[in-house]
Amino acid sequence: MSSLESFHAVIPAGGAGTRLWPLSRSSRPKFLLDLTGSGRTLLQETWDRLRTVVPADHIHVVTGPTHAPLVQQQLPELTSLFVEPSPRDSMPAIGLVAAVVGRRHPGAIIGSFAADHVIADAAGFGAAVRESVAVAESGLIATVGIEPRSPSTAFGYIESGDSLDVPDAPSARAVTRFVEKPDQPTAAQYVRNGSFSWNAGMFVARADMLLGHLARLQPHLHAGLEHIALAWDGPDRQAELESAWPSLTPIAIDHAIAEPVSREGGIGIVPGRFDWDDLGDFAALHALGGRSSSPDVVWVDADGLARAEDGTTIAVVGIHDAVVVHTGDAVLVTTLEHAQQVKEVPARLRREGREDLV
Amino acid sequence: MSSLESFHAVIPAGGAGTRLWPLSRSSRPKFLLDLTGSGRTLLQETWDRLRTVVPADHIHVVTGPTHAPLVQQQLPELTSLFVEPSPRDSMPAIGLVAAVVGRRHPGAIIGSFAADHVIADAAGFGAAVRESVAVAESGLIATVGIEPRSPSTAFGYIESGDSLDVPDAPSARAVTRFVEKPDQPTAAQYVRNGSFSWNAGMFVARADMLLGHLARLQPHLHAGLEHIALAWDGPDRQAELESAWPSLTPIAIDHAIAEPVSREGGIGIVPGRFDWDDLGDFAALHALGGRSSSPDVVWVDADGLARAEDGTTIAVVGIHDAVVVHTGDAVLVTTLEHAQQVKEVPARLRREGREDLV
Repeated sequence: MSSLESFHAVIPAGGAGTRLWPLSRSSRPKFLLDLTGSGRTLLQETWDRLRTVVPADHIHVVTGPTHAPLVQQQLPELTSLFVEPSPRDSMPAIGLVAAVVGRRHPGAIIGSFAADHVIADAAGFGAAVRESVAVAESGLIATVGIEPRSPSTAFGYIESGDSLDVPDAPSARAVTRFVEKPDQPTAAQYVRNGSFSWNAGMFVARADMLLGHLARLQPHLHAGLEHIALAWDGPDRQAELESAWPSLTPIAIDHAIAEPVSREGGIGIVPGRFDWDDLGDFAALHALGGRSSSPDVVWVDADGLARAEDGTTIAVVGIHDAVVVHTGDAVLVTTLEHAQQVKEVPARLRREGREDLV
Repeated sequence: MSSLESFHAVIPAGGAGTRLWPLSRSSRPKFLLDLTGSGRTLLQETWDRLRTVVPADHIHVVTGPTHAPLVQQQLPELTSLFVEPSPRDSMPAIGLVAAVVGRRHPGAIIGSFAADHVIADAAGFGAAVRESVAVAESGLIATVGIEPRSPSTAFGYIESGDSLDVPDAPSARAVTRFVEKPDQPTAAQYVRNGSFSWNAGMFVARADMLLGHLARLQPHLHAGLEHIALAWDGPDRQAELESAWPSLTPIAIDHAIAEPVSREGGIGIVPGRFDWDDLGDFAALHALGGRSSSPDVVWVDADGLARAEDGTTIAVVGIHDAVVVHTGDAVLVTTLEHAQQVKEVPARLRREGREDLV
């Protein structure tokens, strides 16, 4: 397991999570919240899971300046915090860590894991990450694909093909293609087919391989990242970061690397045989069970999810699959069925100049 | 109009209004609230309406000790406040005023009007009251019946018969019978029939006639009231009130007087040709229109009634005919269809020992 020693984990900690408004706000995004009632925030749970695989000084968090103080506070063991001046999507964030860590540690393997996903089975997660590191060591880009529990239309899918013959990664297969969120009949077909996984956005690659693909596929972005990385461990870090960052191409790693490289046969997939959720909306939060309801809820001919941040009593009468969320300054009322539409509320508030509520 | 000079109005100000929880609580019942957004509470609006008919010193309010200070505060012109030691329903409250006022003013006519009903048309109301006073002057018990806008099952009905030949009351008719809240087909039949009115609980009678009926029909209650009235304007008022009140028969004026006397042909009805509502639940409040929604409400594919007492923003997504009410310590969520069930919430809270929320 020498490759695991060169493994570094990146946690891109961004995103507003507007479908969980009013719990999640731009000032306190999903990853900073304890949504599962575990006593740990989603970011802390991500950290805890990764710590079963890598030491603390091999974990790097990328976040914005607004959230950096809370991230550091929630993760006292964290030694490597990358503060991106503005959000440019996932590829610049992951690419910057790859460029900096790759310079410091030739042969480093980088794995990226979202800060706001829920995975209860840390052992299953660790096993999949270890196999992915082995796949990455072989020169491929590895991804962990989740065995679908249902024909969800909320996630992208990954089709897998032949087995790869990688030592220490017996379950790895070649990726045939990445597909966007499907419609319902297509999703049902994918699940029946058996060779499709949910795309959980977990990518593992040798830093040099990742940057090599980037140099080919996004040369402008690659040049900018190398420029910043060159100055990173010297006195000009902040100046170079602030001057170069705004011109970096904002693009997701899926579109920058995963999709084009899959067409070249350069991606391997390791099946993730553990429950996973991206907590995309209140229906997902409800399905997760656990502390989905506050104790002070009166249900009369009603059920669903109801939470109040303070001691406010919530009473729901005659509505099934209700969603009621109360925070200090806002109340959201909807149903599980309409959970995806919740994002329209902060959008509307923003248009009305109510940035204080978004 | 000499009879109008002897007219006194009674406002029984009691009742919790549990179907308007959490707006209405035992500590701040419906009548103390500005539910219509007029800037005046329901009690104050009742006062204002009656003041178009009688002078301030002819208006008497009966309420409990808890609410007496707020009643006096809301009605600075009020000179006659009867504080009942405990709620004993409407007949003891109205009967006490009749006994006291009847002793002070022989020939007095007493009219009783609930503190928490909504009537926008003060002129129409005043005209009906004036006719009722004329009917009462003739020795009958008069009631104002409301011309039904719809086949509501939320109200009792009054059937009227032949015209009465009372001077100054050209539209008065004899009451054939009072009927309890009907089922839907019966209510529809009543409305089609044309001779049924809603029972709004407005009764007008000569004090001596009212007490005479009471002496016959509820002799124990009558004796208790006379006993208290005898001491009322002397030094023993409070002692006699507190000793006699708990033994008074708790009964509504409808059952004590209106129903039995109607069977004897002793009740006359004056049609009330004005919009009237008892604001029995949130559906009634919504139907009333006006300020049924706070300004800070975001409706996304939704509509209904939403109110927050403070500046809390309410967002409703994907629910039509929604009812969302937020107060400092509670949130109610239901639909117009289930508005009648809201009373189960305070009942449940009371069983759970949450008197603070009821």
